[in-house]
Amino acid sequence: MHALTIASGRLDWSPRPDPVPEGSQLLLGVRAAGVNPADLLQVQGHYPPPSDVPQDIPGLELAGTVVEVGPLARQFKVGDRVMGLVGGGAQAELALVDESVALPVPSEIDWASAGGFMEAFATAYDALIGHGGLTLGARVLVTGAAGGVGTAAIQVAAGVGAEVTASARRTEFHAELLELGAHRVMVPSEASGAGPYDLVLELVGGPMLSSHLGQLGTRGRMVVIGVGAGRRIELDLSLLMARRAAIVASTLRARPLHEKAALVRTLGERLLPRLASGRLRVPLAVTFPVAEAPAAYRRVGEGGNLGKVVLLQGS
Amino acid sequence: MHALTIASGRLDWSPRPDPVPEGSQLLLGVRAAGVNPADLLQVQGHYPPPSDVPQDIPGLELAGTVVEVGPLARQFKVGDRVMGLVGGGAQAELALVDESVALPVPSEIDWASAGGFMEAFATAYDALIGHGGLTLGARVLVTGAAGGVGTAAIQVAAGVGAEVTASARRTEFHAELLELGAHRVMVPSEASGAGPYDLVLELVGGPMLSSHLGQLGTRGRMVVIGVGAGRRIELDLSLLMARRAAIVASTLRARPLHEKAALVRTLGERLLPRLASGRLRVPLAVTFPVAEAPAAYRRVGEGGNLGKVVLLQGS
Repeated sequence: MHALTIASGRLDWSPRPDPVPEGSQLLLGVRAAGVNPADLLQVQGHYPPPSDVPQDIPGLELAGTVVEVGPLARQFKVGDRVMGLVGGGAQAELALVDESVALPVPSEIDWASAGGFMEAFATAYDALIGHGGLTLGARVLVTGAAGGVGTAAIQVAAGVGAEVTASARRTEFHAELLELGAHRVMVPSEASGAGPYDLVLELVGGPMLSSHLGQLGTRGRMVVIGVGAGRRIELDLSLLMARRAAIVASTLRARPLHEKAALVRTLGERLLPRLASGRLRVPLAVTFPVAEAPAAYRRVGEGGNLGKVVLLQGS
Repeated sequence: MHALTIASGRLDWSPRPDPVPEGSQLLLGVRAAGVNPADLLQVQGHYPPPSDVPQDIPGLELAGTVVEVGPLARQFKVGDRVMGLVGGGAQAELALVDESVALPVPSEIDWASAGGFMEAFATAYDALIGHGGLTLGARVLVTGAAGGVGTAAIQVAAGVGAEVTASARRTEFHAELLELGAHRVMVPSEASGAGPYDLVLELVGGPMLSSHLGQLGTRGRMVVIGVGAGRRIELDLSLLMARRAAIVASTLRARPLHEKAALVRTLGERLLPRLASGRLRVPLAVTFPVAEAPAAYRRVGEGGNLGKVVLLQGS
């Protein structure tokens, strides 16, 4: 097979040995794989992958057809359309996915959407519901709302009945974010003063983050998932104490398989039917053939996309 | 009556009108009232009291005899020995306590211990169990372990089966902290490198706090209750993200009555029997007659006490 490989901070489409599925792994003929900010960090050498995935092939989510199954795989068979959440290795012709972190692709869903679903929705669901305890009527601020996780988070938050404020730099995206379910959309400087919020989903980091902390209500909680704009803050703890507030931080990629499996099972039960019926969707900023992967990475690096950037293969 | 009153940053024992119990309030003839660091902050003008208590009489916990009951009080009667958790006003001859935040004083317990029980144990229980989710086998660091909340926290944490590391500056107190249930006692510079910890109860603040964050394990949590040594930190959020860790901050005094009532009910059910039987105790650093309140406040301000400083009245 060929795979997108990282060599000295560059990406090449290089020949690699075909992977062999062991245990409960599935071997997928990859049709679509999302490109996420974490992939860029990995290419730049800032985010080493977990030890159980190919160290030099990026890609955290994918969709494709099962071409071979490991001896312990029970849930899927050759030919099934599957999407998966992995710690790396997705951006290749063939990729291994343990069936515990795989879901069937609903027949209504095309490859591009399937390839961009898992990472964004798993992250958003886990952050908002798992870490944030978001529920009916709670006031939530979604920062970086136009991105892959942001657009997923708006839909999950609106779905659970929360009052959703979306913060997005580009005003030309605001109408679309309202359509996804946000109750109000603001530029960051405005949203960071429009609390109180019961929950802030922080996907951006940097100087705005401290303003967002100042907008937490009593028992408010900030869930920190992305800090691309800056990871260091000066924190006055008395501000949190007075509000009995919390800062919770998380990442998805580094978790052990059994934790990812638990999350993927939940997505399968709770979100997959909504994806199939069209109540949830995967906004796509742009797709690229895998041969143009460097352009896709540049696009993610430049930011300012509405939704996901996805690599496609095959016909 | 007379009450300890704050005037221009000074404390005086001054005449005041007798309070009158309304609704479900009890009027207590105060026998003992703990002096807490929060009282010092209030005297210095740094910690304004909640609006529903006397603004210039400090004191967050007390024990005494019921001398009058409000028209809606049902649980206690005149003559009962009662201890209470209040937002202020405890350091007086007479004080009002809503019966929802009052507990009976077990017959085995003397006034001094009863007067120092509520604030420390409510804070410790709420922080460790409520906010921290502490349970069997979890590794917990209690900072400022020799103080009132610290000595309560050691006992609660050991009681729930956690592995307790106590951090205390004064080595002459270490043996006593082991006796209270700590599994190991260290000076702060040592404890701040002896993780990982599943939970850090931060009662001190200042420069050590950042080291403690660095010792959190996966899914670790820091509960910030006291920051007397410094409330500002420089925080690298990626450190929290990699561990999926959280910082939770809280205060007890500012909460609404119904939240304090829920906590006091829990203390009554879960800790009171253990206090009565001697499995929990209130270490007393020193007691002072109320006429010597300024000396008691100096003692709290100087720090380096093992356990509580309590004011006593009557014979």
